Amino acid sequence: MPMTSNASMSALKFISLGGLHEIGKNTCVFEINDEIILLDGGLAFPTDGMHGVNIVLPDMTYLRENQHKIKGMIVTHGHEDHIGGIAFHLKQLNIPVIYGPRLAIALLRGKLEEAGVAGRTQLKSVRPREVVRIGSAFFAEFIRNTHSISDSFTIALHTPVGVVIHTGDFKVDHTPIDGEYFDFQRLAEHGEKGVLCLISDSTNAEVPGQTPSERSVYPNLDRVFSQAQGRLLVTTFASSVHRVNMILDLAKRHGRVVTVLGRSMLNVIALARNLGYIQCEDSLFEPLHVAQQLPDENVLILTTGSQGEPMAALSRITRREHRQVQIRQGDTVVFSANPIPGNTLAVTKIIDELMKQGAKVIYGREQGIHVSGHGCQEDQKLMIALTRPRFFLPAHGEHRMLVKHAETAQAMGISAANIVVIDNGDVVELTETSMQVTGKVTAGVELVDATRTGVVQDSVIKQRQELAENGIITVAATIDFAGKLVAQPEIHWMGVATSPDRSRFHRQVPQLIEQVLNDRWPDFSRSIMERQVDIDWAGLQTQIELELRRLFRRELQSNPLLVFLLQHPQESSQAQQQLAQRYTTA
Amino acid sequence: MPMTSNASMSALKFISLGGLHEIGKNTCVFEINDEIILLDGGLAFPTDGMHGVNIVLPDMTYLRENQHKIKGMIVTHGHEDHIGGIAFHLKQLNIPVIYGPRLAIALLRGKLEEAGVAGRTQLKSVRPREVVRIGSAFFAEFIRNTHSISDSFTIALHTPVGVVIHTGDFKVDHTPIDGEYFDFQRLAEHGEKGVLCLISDSTNAEVPGQTPSERSVYPNLDRVFSQAQGRLLVTTFASSVHRVNMILDLAKRHGRVVTVLGRSMLNVIALARNLGYIQCEDSLFEPLHVAQQLPDENVLILTTGSQGEPMAALSRITRREHRQVQIRQGDTVVFSANPIPGNTLAVTKIIDELMKQGAKVIYGREQGIHVSGHGCQEDQKLMIALTRPRFFLPAHGEHRMLVKHAETAQAMGISAANIVVIDNGDVVELTETSMQVTGKVTAGVELVDATRTGVVQDSVIKQRQELAENGIITVAATIDFAGKLVAQPEIHWMGVATSPDRSRFHRQVPQLIEQVLNDRWPDFSRSIMERQVDIDWAGLQTQIELELRRLFRRELQSNPLLVFLLQHPQESSQAQQQLAQRYTTA
Repeated sequence: MPMTSNASMSALKFISLGGLHEIGKNTCVFEINDEIILLDGGLAFPTDGMHGVNIVLPDMTYLRENQHKIKGMIVTHGHEDHIGGIAFHLKQLNIPVIYGPRLAIALLRGKLEEAGVAGRTQLKSVRPREVVRIGSAFFAEFIRNTHSISDSFTIALHTPVGVVIHTGDFKVDHTPIDGEYFDFQRLAEHGEKGVLCLISDSTNAEVPGQTPSERSVYPNLDRVFSQAQGRLLVTTFASSVHRVNMILDLAKRHGRVVTVLGRSMLNVIALARNLGYIQCEDSLFEPLHVAQQLPDENVLILTTGSQGEPMAALSRITRREHRQVQIRQGDTVVFSANPIPGNTLAVTKIIDELMKQGAKVIYGREQGIHVSGHGCQEDQKLMIALTRPRFFLPAHGEHRMLVKHAETAQAMGISAANIVVIDNGDVVELTETSMQVTGKVTAGVELVDATRTGVVQDSVIKQRQELAENGIITVAATIDFAGKLVAQPEIHWMGVATSPDRSRFHRQVPQLIEQVLNDRWPDFSRSIMERQVDIDWAGLQTQIELELRRLFRRELQSNPLLVFLLQHPQESSQAQQQLAQRYTTA
Repeated sequence: MPMTSNASMSALKFISLGGLHEIGKNTCVFEINDEIILLDGGLAFPTDGMHGVNIVLPDMTYLRENQHKIKGMIVTHGHEDHIGGIAFHLKQLNIPVIYGPRLAIALLRGKLEEAGVAGRTQLKSVRPREVVRIGSAFFAEFIRNTHSISDSFTIALHTPVGVVIHTGDFKVDHTPIDGEYFDFQRLAEHGEKGVLCLISDSTNAEVPGQTPSERSVYPNLDRVFSQAQGRLLVTTFASSVHRVNMILDLAKRHGRVVTVLGRSMLNVIALARNLGYIQCEDSLFEPLHVAQQLPDENVLILTTGSQGEPMAALSRITRREHRQVQIRQGDTVVFSANPIPGNTLAVTKIIDELMKQGAKVIYGREQGIHVSGHGCQEDQKLMIALTRPRFFLPAHGEHRMLVKHAETAQAMGISAANIVVIDNGDVVELTETSMQVTGKVTAGVELVDATRTGVVQDSVIKQRQELAENGIITVAATIDFAGKLVAQPEIHWMGVATSPDRSRFHRQVPQLIEQVLNDRWPDFSRSIMERQVDIDWAGLQTQIELELRRLFRRELQSNPLLVFLLQHPQESSQAQQQLAQRYTTA
């Protein structure tokens, strides 16, 4: 065998099926020889054009085609964009084992049980600095990092070509709420021994400076809590365990019981308390009906809805659709989260509505009541400085963030030749001395609808967009064996904008159809009866459709979609042929 | 007559039909006795749920009902959200005269001509400090202010109850590009003499500090231009005349000819040059085909699309749909504008795409290449300090901005009792000694579709949303006089997500319909023939529809919309009755 083939056989392939050129659905593939391990399996949420879609997953074609190679999966932490897709993947892929931090594994177990796929894999929790062997080629080492959820890891993947470090999501928080410090020692040791490639979180690559510690939020929330006169309603990401911890601690300090609203918030708090990531007394929590009896200044409602999600508790309260909670004069509502870009309008609308209903609303960057869970440029530099990688791959971000992160790496002395900015599906091959993009596999999205089972095809989304833009007119007509309309054609309108006098169409449509019939077959009944020609029903359908479309366009000055349903006798139907005979001989 | 009635007769009414609780479609009504004057007539752009809508206008019911009172209109400046609705209003309202600054009037004239309504009103330009009388009760004084468009005014409205100052849109720019300084002297003089009420721009009420001068952008753009190696593509708001001026000036300095792309940009530049608001030599401009022949470093393309508008030139270039311009390696694209919140995703997507195509993209707040046209908190304070109003009305902003602006006014000593935060349609009555909300008129939106003539009703928007969420199935069936299906029912699918084997519905649907027919009328043909009972066609329709809906819901596990079109013989049709007779006697 030629050398090149050997070289290629021992190269490590890295493919990102999601998470590049976007925030969300992080899903990475490491492959060497015939072994694949996966790192994270996240989901994303639909953007505005994706009508009727609830969840966005990466296209898994590559893994379906190579599923015999899959040896296992690593998850870095418990956020939806890192573990939310796994329940779906297990329905079609065999992933024998999944390793991850305790909290992520506990959250994942709940999801798999709910989806009825818990039996299809083995879930294993790991501790900091634990090393697990997956397949014969991979050893994954879990290195503690700091992030907005507890129990988050950076992964050092020992492979036949060298050590690859995947940062997972991270910030540099020197004063973490849980006292679990970033394990810089292990990163530095790898840096000293030699890191082949660093794959690093690019979320805040556009932001200069450092991300403040989660702890910096505490005094600001404390001030807000001190000033609140009536009830406090506080919303944040359910998965921001440190923040939730802080809010619970402050509730206690300020003499407020806590009522938790929203399924994901209840779920995360219960799990995190079980595992010891949230520590507080049972007596701090009260169900809503008990809290409602207490003085307002002794109540804190901790709720989902910080991103304006329409079905979240806070959104329903704001729309006055929540059965037990209404906003009252004197309530203080605290948004301890910034809206991610696509959600800004939804959130500001809710803030406006809460204010109109009499609440004081505390929101916005200048309040200091939220900090990011991702490191900024200086934090990203520290990661590069500690690991001193030979090759650098920016990950987890939209294209311009990846580009900025690449610039940062270059500024730190990594040559441009040793950096690639890749897209989802690109195949990167790493050897001990080289990194290059050698191909591309199918990458795209799978859209899941509200039932969580149906896959919505792209073509369906396009049709929905057309329906939404233009509306639809449906016309049904039935032609008998004599070439006449059996009855008045039915016309149905939906979502059609311009509506002058619609009644005239009840005249115009049958006239138009009869005109086409007469023009096309002056002696329609003869042709069908004498069987001299076959009736070209499809041609007839097309022609009437064309004329109808012209009519509506002219009269409405718009372009609604048109569905024209033409029914006609089946030529094979004996009864109808008999009937026709009678009719024509009458 | 009782005193209260007298008092009410001499009160000044102020109504905002648009512009509150939103940014856009600013439209104010001042009314006293039987005279109305309007201030601005703007439009807004649709938000995401408004499928197929191009333009949003305020509901003009109040003005239609009171149009005999309308004496005239004032426009404060030439932005779309202040003049863009007027062409529509003139189709239904008689506005005898419109006064405004020269540039706004020139822009407005173009719009009215295009809409074919230029003959329906008189357009009159005014100069700074000019006072015009409108009707018998109002004297409007035009006071120069500074804003992102040239020739912008604050209005001092002299009314029988006192002077009301409406700021229009303003920032405090002590070093304006055009050397036209804010006329603080007139404002201060009014403050000294006594201002009854200040109605003030709240856009940046949430932002502490001062808005930087437009001039601060110059050195930053200069730096960006110096560093550009290849072609420069620059985008900004077409109406930001100062910015455009600056870009043209810098183009000349850096030895680049300018090619202008985009209708609104061409239009504003042509008008502004004619009127002297933009001063540069003809030789600076070159058409695209000439510029294409020049070295890249001598070319600047000034283009629309700074907000990611899908049909703008830059967006079409990015989608590779522009016939003459493609992005090349080495191009520098400059976004000299920040995305307004609803546009962030569209803009970042375009930035990503431009980078992928090889352009260097300069964007973002930290570049200093954009500043707001609206004053921040300190600027708003200066306005209050100069005018010292008795009453204060925050305007032009979303609810939380109005609330913040009210807080700012209170912090400056205006008592809470003298401030109201109102909503569109609220009627504020001002006398020499009081301000109160006394009622509400119809306020809402009129949605205009792509044809610019059709009004899209709310109900249509709701239908479109439903269509987009769920898709639609149409079934057409025809029943003959014998109670039998004439032909195979037609089924049409559009935008329906789950699609198992659809062919089985061609069996199930006719079976279901026949089942209903049999259950309902075991002897259907007899009943119609013997005329003993009238056929309940509506009931039949409803029942089949219900059963079909159940079938689809069960089989598809989703809720597509269903249109069921039932055709049946007309009982009055003689031919059919005859035919039926033959059939049943056969």
